[in-house]
Formats: sequence, C-alpha cells, structure tokens
Amino acid sequence: MQVTLIAGGVGGARMALALQEALPPGDLTVIGNVGDDCEHWGLSISPDLDTVLYTLTGRIDPVNGWGVAGDTRRLMDTAIELGEDDWFILGDKDVALHVARTRRLRAGEALSSITADVARRWGCATRLVPATDDRLRTWIATDDGELPFQEWLVRRRAADPVAGVRFEGIEEATPAPGVLAAIAAADGIRAAIADRRDDVVAVSPVIGGKAVKGPLVEMLASMGHRPDAIGVARYLQPLAGAYVLDPEDAGLADDLDALAMRAIVVPTLLKEPAVRAGVAAAVLA
Amino acid sequence: MQVTLIAGGVGGARMALALQEALPPGDLTVIGNVGDDCEHWGLSISPDLDTVLYTLTGRIDPVNGWGVAGDTRRLMDTAIELGEDDWFILGDKDVALHVARTRRLRAGEALSSITADVARRWGCATRLVPATDDRLRTWIATDDGELPFQEWLVRRRAADPVAGVRFEGIEEATPAPGVLAAIAAADGIRAAIADRRDDVVAVSPVIGGKAVKGPLVEMLASMGHRPDAIGVARYLQPLAGAYVLDPEDAGLADDLDALAMRAIVVPTLLKEPAVRAGVAAAVLA
Repeated sequence: MQVTLIAGGVGGARMALALQEALPPGDLTVIGNVGDDCEHWGLSISPDLDTVLYTLTGRIDPVNGWGVAGDTRRLMDTAIELGEDDWFILGDKDVALHVARTRRLRAGEALSSITADVARRWGCATRLVPATDDRLRTWIATDDGELPFQEWLVRRRAADPVAGVRFEGIEEATPAPGVLAAIAAADGIRAAIADRRDDVVAVSPVIGGKAVKGPLVEMLASMGHRPDAIGVARYLQPLAGAYVLDPEDAGLADDLDALAMRAIVVPTLLKEPAVRAGVAAAVLA
Repeated sequence: MQVTLIAGGVGGARMALALQEALPPGDLTVIGNVGDDCEHWGLSISPDLDTVLYTLTGRIDPVNGWGVAGDTRRLMDTAIELGEDDWFILGDKDVALHVARTRRLRAGEALSSITADVARRWGCATRLVPATDDRLRTWIATDDGELPFQEWLVRRRAADPVAGVRFEGIEEATPAPGVLAAIAAADGIRAAIADRRDDVVAVSPVIGGKAVKGPLVEMLASMGHRPDAIGVARYLQPLAGAYVLDPEDAGLADDLDALAMRAIVVPTLLKEPAVRAGVAAAVLA
C-alpha cells in the first residue's frame, strides 16, 4: 500500500516514524515542509526536513526532538568567539549536513535530489521529498515588523503576537519531482490533495489545547482562531475527510461532524513505540 | 621597532611566533600567503593564514603543525558519510573559522578585514595581513595536467613531479590594505621589498637539504633547481640582503657570498622557545 504523509517538524517526524514502522519498506513517501527553511552562518538549513530525516534514521536527539543525539557544539562555540550569531543551535554533526547541502545547492543540484541522496546514504527506507525545490520562506508579521520565521520562533522565542503569516515565493513555487505522483497527479499540491479528500487523514497537532511542539496554539490565538484541535481542523477541512483526535479531545468530535470530517479517536502523543503503532494502524485503516 | 615578516605556512608561522615573542606587542606585522587558498566543501579556506593565526594565538596543533590542538572530526566524519571529499582534514573548531570567513566573503567583506577582526577577537597582538584581497590561486603543472595546489599537495601527497607553477590572478592582484605600508610604499609588493633589500632578512626554509614542512625540496628538484637552501636563496636574491642558515648548512655561506647575500648562521628549527628567541634576535640584529 503506497502511503503519503505530509509532515512538518517534530510531530510530523514522529508520525512519519509511526507509519514507517507500520508499513513494509518502500511504501511510505513523506512530503516535507520547506517553509521554515533559513540561511544561518551562510548555510542553507531545512529544519523540518532534517528533523524527519534524523527521526527516520534513528539519529534524532530524543530530548530536544531536533538535532542529532549526542551531538557536540565545538564548532558553534568557536563560531560564537568569531562573532557569529549564537541564537540558532547547530551541533557539529548537524553542520556537516548543512555544509554538504549548501555546497550542492550552490553547485546547482535540486534540494529534492540532495535530500533523496542523503536519505539513501543513511539507509532510509522512506522516500522523503521536499514540497518544492523552489525558494519558499515564511514571514511572521508582528508589532516589530515582519520577521523571518526562525528569527520569530527561535531568536525571539515566539514571544511576539502573530498578526499574519506570509509565504514568500508561494505563487511561483512548483511541486518538487515526485510530490504530485505521491499524491496523484494534479496541477498543484493543494488541488491534488483536495481531489482525494476521502482518502486523506489529518492528525491533530494539538492535544488538550497544547501543541506537541512549537508555537502553533499561540499563533492560532493571536490570529483570532480557536486555539485547539478544531482551530487546525478548520484549515484542513477542504483537504481531509478524517481527523485524528487524542482521547483528551474526544469531546470535540461533534465540532468535526459540523465540518464534514470523520473523527478518529486514538492516543496521538507519539513518543512511545506502542502509541506510534496504534495511531499508524488507525490512520492506515 | 616596526618589523614586517612575509610568511608562508608552518615554518613562517613559527618564525612569526619567534618575532612576536621577541618584540613589544604591536611591533610585528605578518604578511601572509594566500596563494595556497582553496575552496573545499564549498568553504573558503586560507591554510597559511590560519596556520599563522593559530600559531600566534596558541591554538595550533603542535604535532601536525596545522589545525587546532585537540580538535575533533565529528563534522568531517558525517560529511564523509554524506559523500563529501575526505582528503582534506578539517576539524570541528577549524571549520567554524572557514564557515565564518565564507559567509563574510560572500557578504562582500574583504579577506584582510575578516582576518584582522578574527585576530583581534582572539587577542593577537600581531597584525596579520593577507598579501592580497584578490583571488590568487597556485596551480601545479604535472604529467597528469595542471592541478590546484592543495589537490597536488594533500590529495596526491605531492607525489607528481612539478613541471611548473602558475599563479592564477597574479597579474590582477593588488596588495591588500596595509601590505605596502608595512613594507614601505611602492607600486607593488615585490618592488617594495627590493627597494629595501639591505633591511630584508630571509630565513631559509631548508635545513640540511630537507624542508621544515612540505614538498619544497621536491618542487625545487623537479624544476631543475638546487634542492637545498641555496636553491631558495637564488629566488630571494633580488629581495633580501641577508639570509639565515642553520648551522647544519654553514658550509653554504660561500655560495651566499656569490649571491651578494650576507650569511647569518643560527639554529632555525623553531619548535623550541629558546631556538625561536635566538633566531628572532639574530634577524632583528
């Protein structure tokens, strides 16, 4: 069974691992977010792709949920001595991936090709494809002006209320090779997903009014949306016919009915292998 | 007393340290070689400048004579997993300098400005100035064609006989800010040195027919020159009025007379502080 997962960072990476563990090798394709990509120290960094890659290949730091387990910061300590920015943490092993990716991008290779090659070298059975090879950047509108996503999230610790979100390059960006095939050919990622709404299952990234990781709930609230699993479901309603809720949110099932989305209630905090197996089985069923 | 040293890599760095230890802080300027610079993993690397910088600030690996003492290779191990070239050894702390320099060069800052700032941040009392901010690259002609210097030296271990040496960019390169002032204003580095030949002391990099470090003697031999201290002295004859020989080469003093160069005989293998103090005193006298 060919299954495609569209994933962001920490939570999406764990869902990808859940499906990878549940499916035969080669049956899973993960379409990764590149909207959070950034340049730091002159290096091209794809935080969400890397989190998926590190998670699927057993490299992920289990405490942080990002970066490489047991990584050191010898390079970073020296870079800070030399006056480089100190707010984005980059471990020594992690920088190797960024250096290699930066070199290859500058040499003209597509991000999707680099990502596939790295996954292959690390023996990853899952295809990982960036949503687009084109430049796509998220900007957050705040009272202090528009900030690059990582500056807003990491440097300023997501403390500025979000007045708006802008995706620079979204009009020109085209799906990377393999993205549309993984969904079913269509003339755009979103259209391709909507065409198969009945087969699309979304997994709530919000449990009991709290995000698994990151500032999602605060972003929803400051933009005037419901700060819970339903606030996210309203975004996904045109695309997904079913929505996975944690038992803690079972009371929200009626709200899903009103959105014509089928509720699937199963534990979704994916740190434990048993929970991963359960949610993977529920989604695949 | 303002003193200017024109230095290459390991041997030159030790001579710089000898003079730095012998002079009051601020009296020494080192003009560093950039002809061996290279791009590796997409990073801009200046091996000779870095060796001088690491030596003058106590960071140098005393065993290798290059790189940072106690540095690790965690980034390099991962880069090799990802298919990057494995023949140029880059430690984790060392890469931090290359990453910072690469970012700043791409942002338009001059190599001399970056180098001065790094030296200042690391508390280096000596001014270190690259000979030029322009792109200058050394190519080695071999039977297998022309090779970039570091490929010839490191990747192929200097095993290919040298048919010729070409300095790409030498015609267009202009002295970096501070270089001419450090020698005395003139319309070119070489002319500036030759104008002060009587004040210029060269230190032989060859002792007993062996280079302190590197393939110098083999290069001399394969290009048809004398493979000893005199082979080098003939290159320096128009520029330097005096030449420091190790006692092991005292018998070559007559050959120096024929070149109108004054022989200064003093131990020159500069690993030990006492030897450094002796050669610095002899040169300054």
